[in-house]
Amino acid sequence: MKEKSPYLLPIGFRAFSARAGLYPSAGRLDTAIFISDVPCSAAAVFTTNVVKAAPVLLSSKVIRSGRARMIVANSGCANACTGARGMKDAKEISRFAAQAMGVPESETLNASTGVIGKFLPLPKLKTAIRKISTDARQFTDFDPVRAARAIMTTDTRPKVAGTTINLGGEQVTIWGCAKGAGMIHPNMATMLSFIFTDALIAPAAMRSMLKRAADHSFNQLSVDGDTSTNDTVFFLANGRSGAILKGRSDLAKFEQELTRVSRSLAEQIAADGEGATSRIDIDVKGVKNDADARKIAFTIATSPLVKTAVFGRDANWGRILAAAGRSGAQFDPNRAEVRFGKLCVCKFGGARPFSEAKARKILSAKIVPITVDLHQGKGQARYVTCDFSIDYVKINADYRT
Amino acid sequence: MKEKSPYLLPIGFRAFSARAGLYPSAGRLDTAIFISDVPCSAAAVFTTNVVKAAPVLLSSKVIRSGRARMIVANSGCANACTGARGMKDAKEISRFAAQAMGVPESETLNASTGVIGKFLPLPKLKTAIRKISTDARQFTDFDPVRAARAIMTTDTRPKVAGTTINLGGEQVTIWGCAKGAGMIHPNMATMLSFIFTDALIAPAAMRSMLKRAADHSFNQLSVDGDTSTNDTVFFLANGRSGAILKGRSDLAKFEQELTRVSRSLAEQIAADGEGATSRIDIDVKGVKNDADARKIAFTIATSPLVKTAVFGRDANWGRILAAAGRSGAQFDPNRAEVRFGKLCVCKFGGARPFSEAKARKILSAKIVPITVDLHQGKGQARYVTCDFSIDYVKINADYRT
Repeated sequence: MKEKSPYLLPIGFRAFSARAGLYPSAGRLDTAIFISDVPCSAAAVFTTNVVKAAPVLLSSKVIRSGRARMIVANSGCANACTGARGMKDAKEISRFAAQAMGVPESETLNASTGVIGKFLPLPKLKTAIRKISTDARQFTDFDPVRAARAIMTTDTRPKVAGTTINLGGEQVTIWGCAKGAGMIHPNMATMLSFIFTDALIAPAAMRSMLKRAADHSFNQLSVDGDTSTNDTVFFLANGRSGAILKGRSDLAKFEQELTRVSRSLAEQIAADGEGATSRIDIDVKGVKNDADARKIAFTIATSPLVKTAVFGRDANWGRILAAAGRSGAQFDPNRAEVRFGKLCVCKFGGARPFSEAKARKILSAKIVPITVDLHQGKGQARYVTCDFSIDYVKINADYRT
Repeated sequence: MKEKSPYLLPIGFRAFSARAGLYPSAGRLDTAIFISDVPCSAAAVFTTNVVKAAPVLLSSKVIRSGRARMIVANSGCANACTGARGMKDAKEISRFAAQAMGVPESETLNASTGVIGKFLPLPKLKTAIRKISTDARQFTDFDPVRAARAIMTTDTRPKVAGTTINLGGEQVTIWGCAKGAGMIHPNMATMLSFIFTDALIAPAAMRSMLKRAADHSFNQLSVDGDTSTNDTVFFLANGRSGAILKGRSDLAKFEQELTRVSRSLAEQIAADGEGATSRIDIDVKGVKNDADARKIAFTIATSPLVKTAVFGRDANWGRILAAAGRSGAQFDPNRAEVRFGKLCVCKFGGARPFSEAKARKILSAKIVPITVDLHQGKGQARYVTCDFSIDYVKINADYRT
């Protein structure tokens, strides 16, 4: 297990992975453990879905203390809609992993992702956890990207991001990984993200900065309130760098980097949406206020007609304007402007002649920037999404079976 | 032009169609005129989209008088996002058609559907209207289904429905046609429906009964507030049957039939959604109140993950429950039950063993009934939608070009 990532985990954190056999394909990783060698301050953001998976219910209790040391996670089974037995199973996995890794159960967080409505295969998972505990004793060297890979479902690649900053004379590292896929609507696909740092921060400060960072990253992922049964962001800080974050300017500097890492993870999720051939960055501006701008950006980002048009490299701006119009925000359509990249295709709410060849080129890039400027205020918002392809339907028509 | 429809137009109504050449394929109809030989009481329901097409803006003024005699409609071009010129064009078409057909311009309604952001080809449309006015003088016999065909965009078949009832000793006919397609989200696809009757009804009574009928049909089409730039329902009553609807019981009886016709049209639209292989009827019950039930039904009906699962004949009830959970309605998931037809697949919020073969059979039918019963109240709602196929993406990736 060699370190292959360009990003290093913060001091004192280790990440392990193993195969419990939750997927039929041989060798596919499905179990991961992230662990700190000392207890951490901890914060989390969970799904707002009424239907919450057992690991969400369990972890939201654990995190209340503001203290954690370990995350045990699996893909292949969401342990959602599994009632009392699901809750018992989640507890059993936490208890077993805690014992195997020598960590208090009260400092162990749990996350699952995968098919809804199936029970966790406990014996298989325990075998994988036992394997990890052996590895943890044997190896000091390991590959966190393999752990990021173990939480993937229909993702085609692992998502990791990291950064190092200088705070009060100490070097502080922030590292995060995530899984997304499912049309990058964390509303159903389940988004998991685990972020670690070796700075020392008070749990209350972590909670508020994680909330804001998530609002400017994961919650701009054509998501908003629409979250899955399992969506979870965990954030652990173990203080091993020696940097203690207390002053306002330190906290602000750190938060900026945390947001950058979160945003990178969110963008990686968008680019790897199920069947996606391109990421779409939607910027809405000139709106009466930010809330209306957000409604408009969200409606465009979730419109199947807009997303299929981008897949078809079709500069169909009418669908974009029509989506804005049904968003619930009130505005004067006669001032609206729509741009693909720098190419203006609609001005004063109507057609504007443009080169179809240029438009096709912009729409064929890996990242398609769409701007809607209503020219009637200072409100703005941003959403990141992806196009909607034939493969999306293929993947989702046959996910469970 | 022979009458081929199983449904007869009400007395005094005629429907004509012609080809203006708005589509490249030879012989494809794209222009229709529906006309009554006497002035009618009239009511309408329009899109709630902020971005309203020119014909919607024009017709909503005309209809204020509660009086109309003719509808001129075209497919192939929506005349939306066309600004002042679009409005001038819509007026020009109304004026021209009124003159050609010998009807006051103030009694002429206008509707368009098709691509957004393009101007109407006036000369072509005028040629088609001129042809219709010649036909109207020559033929007393005609085919209303051809007119229904002329308003189709990506619809694969025309939608018509009709009924005859006895009211106060007179035979009264109700006949309607519609076009839908575009994923049956009238939110962007444009839904047009024109309904005619030979009963005599006051405009105010027509308005309120049309509103209610639409709420129980077109507005349960995975639509709700989400309407396109052009969505329009026109309802004309010419009184030629001799039946005068005034008494409460007559009006109630008539409204019931009007709702039945509207619902049939809405169901035909759902079954013919772009790329659809099956219609999905979603019944939500046992909810705290009707408003919450509606939120839940709407969220399930618009979930791409639910719709692709049905396309894949996959009894993935977890996605249905997760969609309910993110709808915004609060409920206890532990009482939830999900059924495909009569097959219970989830009870008390968790998995219930069921025959996959039976589930696959139910999911392979032309109409797939899904019931979600929360067992915690008397609120209920219904939505009709369709599955989400590979062909949907193909159609919409390449609509404009």
